[in-house]
Amino acid sequence: MNTLPRSVEALIQELGKLPGVGRRSAERLAFHLLHAERERALALAGAIQRVKDEIGLCETCHFLAEGSRCAICADSAREESVICVVEQSLDVIAFERAGGFHGRYHVLGGRLSPLRGVSPEDLAIADLTERAASPQVEELILATSPSLEGDATAHYLQRRLESTGKRITRLGRGVPSGSSLEHSDPATLRAALEGRRPLGA
Amino acid sequence: MNTLPRSVEALIQELGKLPGVGRRSAERLAFHLLHAERERALALAGAIQRVKDEIGLCETCHFLAEGSRCAICADSAREESVICVVEQSLDVIAFERAGGFHGRYHVLGGRLSPLRGVSPEDLAIADLTERAASPQVEELILATSPSLEGDATAHYLQRRLESTGKRITRLGRGVPSGSSLEHSDPATLRAALEGRRPLGA
Repeated sequence: MNTLPRSVEALIQELGKLPGVGRRSAERLAFHLLHAERERALALAGAIQRVKDEIGLCETCHFLAEGSRCAICADSAREESVICVVEQSLDVIAFERAGGFHGRYHVLGGRLSPLRGVSPEDLAIADLTERAASPQVEELILATSPSLEGDATAHYLQRRLESTGKRITRLGRGVPSGSSLEHSDPATLRAALEGRRPLGA
Repeated sequence: MNTLPRSVEALIQELGKLPGVGRRSAERLAFHLLHAERERALALAGAIQRVKDEIGLCETCHFLAEGSRCAICADSAREESVICVVEQSLDVIAFERAGGFHGRYHVLGGRLSPLRGVSPEDLAIADLTERAASPQVEELILATSPSLEGDATAHYLQRRLESTGKRITRLGRGVPSGSSLEHSDPATLRAALEGRRPLGA
């Protein structure tokens, strides 16, 4: 719309490139920033600038890091015997929020997808096999997503890693806590039946 | 979460202040920006900076403007005889997108709200009465939102403006185009009945 100043239109365009932000949401966000106090709007611009300047990937696990090692790899209290292999940094956040895991992570940077042209060389798999070979490591949890592509990635990793002789596990499948059986999809219910466990075990 | 670098946490906080963006969405947006190409992420930061540097409000109508006059007030092809009074700049965009209105606007900067402490002095009402008094102006369309507060604002403006002797109108109320009667709320249906018009008129 040519009634909008060009810089406002440019901001709407940039906001519209964010995931899940359509044209109307982008307008709403842009107008919020336009009407926000100068300092508050510039705080967001500054925060973006700062992460692009300061944040890279951990040399060991490829999680987000300020410097060469992430906070988890730098934490000597974390067990070195278990590596939880995930697709993306967001998954690390999800596990850390859930609590209960005290090992290390390995972020693949995606999952295998012939359709989207993602092959093993595009993921951080070479480093993973190297880390897995270390004598301290006892178990590898293949926590790729519970989807066709995630499963295929896990199977590929399993074949690549089985020569290490380490214990290789996959996340449990079943009905999510707090959900209703009525709305569970068939694949989830079948997985829950297969994964059933004796009460009290 | 202290596993995240501080600058990433700061970015998530800033994104979370945007309207409609909760913690999880803010994380998702932050990770998108983290993994985006440097140039693309900085384009957003730059666009925010630019609007805060370049954009102000039109001296006449308080719509967004680069300089002292907005594109609409600067456009001599727009009729000066009708002023459409709206709450916010986003409403101008909505009318312009809809098309069909060729007059000028006046952006109040909100609506009267005793609950949120918004009183007449907080809105651009003084300038409106001044503009309304101009001999070119024939009609004022009070296009505040179709809500309790929007209606109250329109009634207040009507009292303030009636001494000008100009024609004062309000947007038509009724069932929205493309909607289903079945899902219309009672107030909308009552308004549609009251506002009924002879066929062919």
